[in-house]
Amino acid sequence: MTEISLYKPYPAAEVPAWDMETDVAIIGFGATGACAAIEAAQAGARVMLFERNSGSGGASGLSGGEIYIGGNGGTDVQRAAGFSDTTEDFAAYLKAAGGPCADDAKCDAYAIGALDHFAWLKAQGVPYKGTYLPGKIIEPTGDDTLIWSGSEAATPFRHVAKPAPRGHVIQHMGWGGGRPLVDILEKRARESGVEVVVDARALALVQDGERIVGVVMRIDNQPRFVKAAAVVLATGGFVMNEAMRRKYAPQTLRINSPIGDKDDGTGIELGISAGGDAIHMDQFFTTCPWTIPESHAHGVFVNVKGQRFINEDCYHGRVSRTMVDQPGHGVYLLLDSAHYQQAPDFARMSIAATGDDWAEVEGELGMLPGTLTPTMDFYNAHAREGRDPLFDKQPPILVPLDQGPFIALELNFETSYFSFFTLGGLKTSASAEVLSRAGTPIPGLFAAGRCTSGLPAWGHGYSSGMSLADCTFFGRAAGRNAARANS
Amino acid sequence: MTEISLYKPYPAAEVPAWDMETDVAIIGFGATGACAAIEAAQAGARVMLFERNSGSGGASGLSGGEIYIGGNGGTDVQRAAGFSDTTEDFAAYLKAAGGPCADDAKCDAYAIGALDHFAWLKAQGVPYKGTYLPGKIIEPTGDDTLIWSGSEAATPFRHVAKPAPRGHVIQHMGWGGGRPLVDILEKRARESGVEVVVDARALALVQDGERIVGVVMRIDNQPRFVKAAAVVLATGGFVMNEAMRRKYAPQTLRINSPIGDKDDGTGIELGISAGGDAIHMDQFFTTCPWTIPESHAHGVFVNVKGQRFINEDCYHGRVSRTMVDQPGHGVYLLLDSAHYQQAPDFARMSIAATGDDWAEVEGELGMLPGTLTPTMDFYNAHAREGRDPLFDKQPPILVPLDQGPFIALELNFETSYFSFFTLGGLKTSASAEVLSRAGTPIPGLFAAGRCTSGLPAWGHGYSSGMSLADCTFFGRAAGRNAARANS
Repeated sequence: MTEISLYKPYPAAEVPAWDMETDVAIIGFGATGACAAIEAAQAGARVMLFERNSGSGGASGLSGGEIYIGGNGGTDVQRAAGFSDTTEDFAAYLKAAGGPCADDAKCDAYAIGALDHFAWLKAQGVPYKGTYLPGKIIEPTGDDTLIWSGSEAATPFRHVAKPAPRGHVIQHMGWGGGRPLVDILEKRARESGVEVVVDARALALVQDGERIVGVVMRIDNQPRFVKAAAVVLATGGFVMNEAMRRKYAPQTLRINSPIGDKDDGTGIELGISAGGDAIHMDQFFTTCPWTIPESHAHGVFVNVKGQRFINEDCYHGRVSRTMVDQPGHGVYLLLDSAHYQQAPDFARMSIAATGDDWAEVEGELGMLPGTLTPTMDFYNAHAREGRDPLFDKQPPILVPLDQGPFIALELNFETSYFSFFTLGGLKTSASAEVLSRAGTPIPGLFAAGRCTSGLPAWGHGYSSGMSLADCTFFGRAAGRNAARANS
Repeated sequence: MTEISLYKPYPAAEVPAWDMETDVAIIGFGATGACAAIEAAQAGARVMLFERNSGSGGASGLSGGEIYIGGNGGTDVQRAAGFSDTTEDFAAYLKAAGGPCADDAKCDAYAIGALDHFAWLKAQGVPYKGTYLPGKIIEPTGDDTLIWSGSEAATPFRHVAKPAPRGHVIQHMGWGGGRPLVDILEKRARESGVEVVVDARALALVQDGERIVGVVMRIDNQPRFVKAAAVVLATGGFVMNEAMRRKYAPQTLRINSPIGDKDDGTGIELGISAGGDAIHMDQFFTTCPWTIPESHAHGVFVNVKGQRFINEDCYHGRVSRTMVDQPGHGVYLLLDSAHYQQAPDFARMSIAATGDDWAEVEGELGMLPGTLTPTMDFYNAHAREGRDPLFDKQPPILVPLDQGPFIALELNFETSYFSFFTLGGLKTSASAEVLSRAGTPIPGLFAAGRCTSGLPAWGHGYSSGMSLADCTFFGRAAGRNAARANS
């Protein structure tokens, strides 16, 4: 028998027998796969949804369930909270957040389509309480549904687009809204007639000429040949695959807490095997939950040289991603007694120094006089005037830190909780077609979510909800367009 | 006829007729291709060497002709200049210079083999005067042949390995030793019986099962089928291909002067088409010639925030690469009257500010009091004591800058001369075999030089001569091993 390999499509002519047949085969049952399945089924296609684990979830199920939504005047939730949001501002923010990696076509498609997408999510049964929670929030601890989840109000983004809060969180008590989000999507998929096959791992695509015509799945320890008019890859990124990280994103080796669920790059490998192109593979999101408690959001970060490196009022993940660029073993979060509270245990941040003035903290950190002190003197002198001429941090987050005693918390790359996942992946069109290296769609092959490079393309520009927005919106596009491959 | 594509190997069964036949077909006539050709021919293989231009050269021909050599006690040139160099120190430096992208097997292979390689280069007729030129040199302006061409004596590298100068430059008056180096290698290749075919562009590999059995070349506007027992890719990187840079190395879009000669990623595409793996594609080398005149090497760099960001005594390219990480439009090179001289026109560095003290420079740069001034006060206070506690810059490069008037030169990413080339490419073994995504050699396919990720894997660790070392050493390995593919 011909070898079955992740790295090479299996020739259709050599399939011994088709074990199963469907119109659309979807690999991966996170939010991406679920949305693809619902759309494909509702378009009239027979759909088989394969999942490697014994149930749905994927990295989506581990997430906060935030979806980044705006544009077209604003969602009902945004408007009820007093915010308007134009499509132009929304698109401009998405492009700025994509930085040098931005896919303009995807940003435009999503900015135009996000409100309809929100309506669709609600139509699937995803509940939104409609309440706005101001402040620096990672995820609501209650069941509010609109938060500032990005760097919209911070420099440089505030100069690019009018800010609005766009993090729409499923109504759910506390953290972890991703699990109920996937549950609702799963229910909808099953109601739509999607056949779910769990404990099924993708081994290879099946190709006939240029066209993908199926997939080989490992089920009950046997290869099973699944005939499909189209295959949708929805397998997530490669954060759990250290060998791939070493080859493509070695900067992630500085930090320690991958967020994923068997996200080993399978879909990326399958897409490449069919001639696909994997782009921006060095990019990753990371965050250390330094804005908990919320008073810590007023803190100032310095690197081991005593230098500030960013306006700390931007998204916690953007700050964290910039931390990982700094020299040395970690960075310090500086707080005064008016703002310090004990950090949560899970953050694994430790007190590195205290002092009655910043000079004492400087000394206790082992920094020389004239490093940290002028940094904080300069910062405080201007913060008292309500400005930050160096990095343009804005009030009300901007406050002087001048009420001793003072504290430096260490965020250590090796030991503190820096969660992360990868952003690089297959190059796809805004229609979720997997593009070949020549830039043309590979017939019968679609992909969405973190096995692609999508809306969240640039680690320094990530905002919460951007990945699930990408997963659900382009997951749907993948399902719709895959269903058409049959006709 | 079957489509001929860079992105897909042409099936051997569909070759209408072989137009040419050889044992080893080499694509690209820079130093890599030349060395591969010499070795393959001297191993008894028939060799055809194809070049897209009308003559040899490639990016090697545009280079300074420096080759990074050391280990095994040191070269005759190193020893004559009073330096010893162990293989362990050499390997340790190479690995540190590869940073998170280092290929340990290649570093070890080269550290062990570099002295023999040097002897081989001399046996081919490459002349080395044997004289050592101390100081901060980009390329000798005379015909000296040993220079400090990396960050060996600078932190952190000096703590990793005992420093030695290792930049071995072909004896040649002035800059541009790469051209005579390639000329000598070309002469040797032709004498060895290599058949050179110019104005020949690679269109596709030819594959039979897993094995590469030839290549389709465009010659006289016709596709020509070349049968070969092995193919060597030696086509260079992708610095001249803006679309590829946008997908894989978008940070290079900040800077402006690609160094290359049709380096459009052809070899990388061909390798991937055969199942190869392209790694570290985001990495690039860059330099702005800020150490000319040499007195400028004593300068201090600050970013637009007035912060220093590196020990300026490390390799000019490492400093330059770190510049490109800084926020804003560029960086400033600070000099005092004891060290300032006019910068060369081609660097396109302009005077951004002058002043009788650093506070005046600070103001003229539009920086606020309390930014640049404490940076320079701290620097000068410690430099007077012969130390740099912040970045550990070492004497004699470390000097106080306290003799007014003072000057800030602007190095602007968009307009100053930031030359650059790409470092990412095919994953190859230390035997120059192109490795598949599964990590196994692709039969009949070899590659070396900048279409691979090699010794110079990490932009922040590059040292002059590292790329030509990689090109010539692993180019030779490619030729030798390709010649064996015939037997």
